[in-house]
Amino acid sequence: MHIDVLTLFPEMLEGMLNSSIMKRAAEARHFTYELINFREFSANKHKKVDDYPYGGGAGMVLAPQPIFDAVAYAKQNRPTEHPRVILMCPQGETYTQKKAEELAQEEHLIIICGHYEGYDERIRTYLATDEISIGDYVLTSGEIGAMVVIDSVVRLLPGVLGNEQSPKQDSFSTGLLEHPHYTRPADFRGMKVPEVLLQGNHAKIERWRMKESLRRTLKRRPDLLKKITLTKEQEELLQEIYREEKSEPLR
Amino acid sequence: MHIDVLTLFPEMLEGMLNSSIMKRAAEARHFTYELINFREFSANKHKKVDDYPYGGGAGMVLAPQPIFDAVAYAKQNRPTEHPRVILMCPQGETYTQKKAEELAQEEHLIIICGHYEGYDERIRTYLATDEISIGDYVLTSGEIGAMVVIDSVVRLLPGVLGNEQSPKQDSFSTGLLEHPHYTRPADFRGMKVPEVLLQGNHAKIERWRMKESLRRTLKRRPDLLKKITLTKEQEELLQEIYREEKSEPLR
Repeated sequence: MHIDVLTLFPEMLEGMLNSSIMKRAAEARHFTYELINFREFSANKHKKVDDYPYGGGAGMVLAPQPIFDAVAYAKQNRPTEHPRVILMCPQGETYTQKKAEELAQEEHLIIICGHYEGYDERIRTYLATDEISIGDYVLTSGEIGAMVVIDSVVRLLPGVLGNEQSPKQDSFSTGLLEHPHYTRPADFRGMKVPEVLLQGNHAKIERWRMKESLRRTLKRRPDLLKKITLTKEQEELLQEIYREEKSEPLR
Repeated sequence: MHIDVLTLFPEMLEGMLNSSIMKRAAEARHFTYELINFREFSANKHKKVDDYPYGGGAGMVLAPQPIFDAVAYAKQNRPTEHPRVILMCPQGETYTQKKAEELAQEEHLIIICGHYEGYDERIRTYLATDEISIGDYVLTSGEIGAMVVIDSVVRLLPGVLGNEQSPKQDSFSTGLLEHPHYTRPADFRGMKVPEVLLQGNHAKIERWRMKESLRRTLKRRPDLLKKITLTKEQEELLQEIYREEKSEPLR
């Protein structure tokens, strides 16, 4: 996979791309990337990339020319017939793990980052194949959103994560939140690890983990619980939890 | 406001903190921050910060000692009585603009970033005041989540944004998605700006913008539309949109 990022602040992304798993993934050529400063594509003699909005109002608008030409450059560098051109913006579809899995199948992503300004609508209409919002909050720039897309997609590429960090066990892949984890010491300043984890009965440990995973999901994200089909064992554990918590069944 | 970030990869955050609006906000002392590598607080002679999970299984778990001691260090450096201690994790509450506005009222935030491993549950139970997830997708690390929290909170602090970028007009502050924006040229390679924006009738322009804002919200995020109380004008515009789109009213 190749990822092009169109940004006015390439240095914002460098730290993340040069650290830890992303760094190793790039060094091992599991993916390649280019940070493209679209200011360099501005036909304006002052290298301007924005202008006042038609119709008046506060704020500036990113002009179409530099971004259209930077995308054309990114496309001509790669053989892919239909790269995904992703606009990071609050008006986009809310990003999910499902979307990350879909994008991980692609050969070429072009991610466009705005910076606290609106995009000229023609970029949205004629250039973007996807518009993505990473959540219902406002950021000063699209660069953090681009990092979310890159990190979540690249970690799914074959060979990037070792078996130790298998994506199969992720919170949003099983449909449930993870059970609690504990490590040494068993007693940390008076705060103790649950007995069941110390006794070595693996059937009991598995049951405890599944139950606590269900309990956490029920308490914090009942919306997730409604989306999955429970096994018979999970249904029984959930009944136990309802009794323990003296709560009403969810459905 | 002071923000401490506990991280094993401080360099991941540096690019974002040293660019654009965040850089200017820090230089103008609208906020201060410290990136604390909690590995330095490990009492282990090899500076280990993680260990195998009790009860077995794949993956490592971040041990309590280095994080408890790094948080104690962060607290003793500041006079705030009750700093918010925020754990970035997929099990946390989903982050929203409302939460950003709440955190922007605080004097001291301590943000803990995990790195593709679980946290020992005692960190969650005894140390964290808040657990935050930035969305329903899996990332290799909490650092990108920390950037989301920092950027979204700092931009709300007094003096950080100029009037030009007023937070009052944000997508998630008005409850509607923004209307389309256009800038020069009026005809870009055959792609044209809507006539109404070029004619200078401001009442018509305002009406067009409100209508397109409603149309976009209806099409893309009807969930947002259900959360707000519409004005009489907005109700009328919405009826027009239903007729134009030949769609059924939402409610």
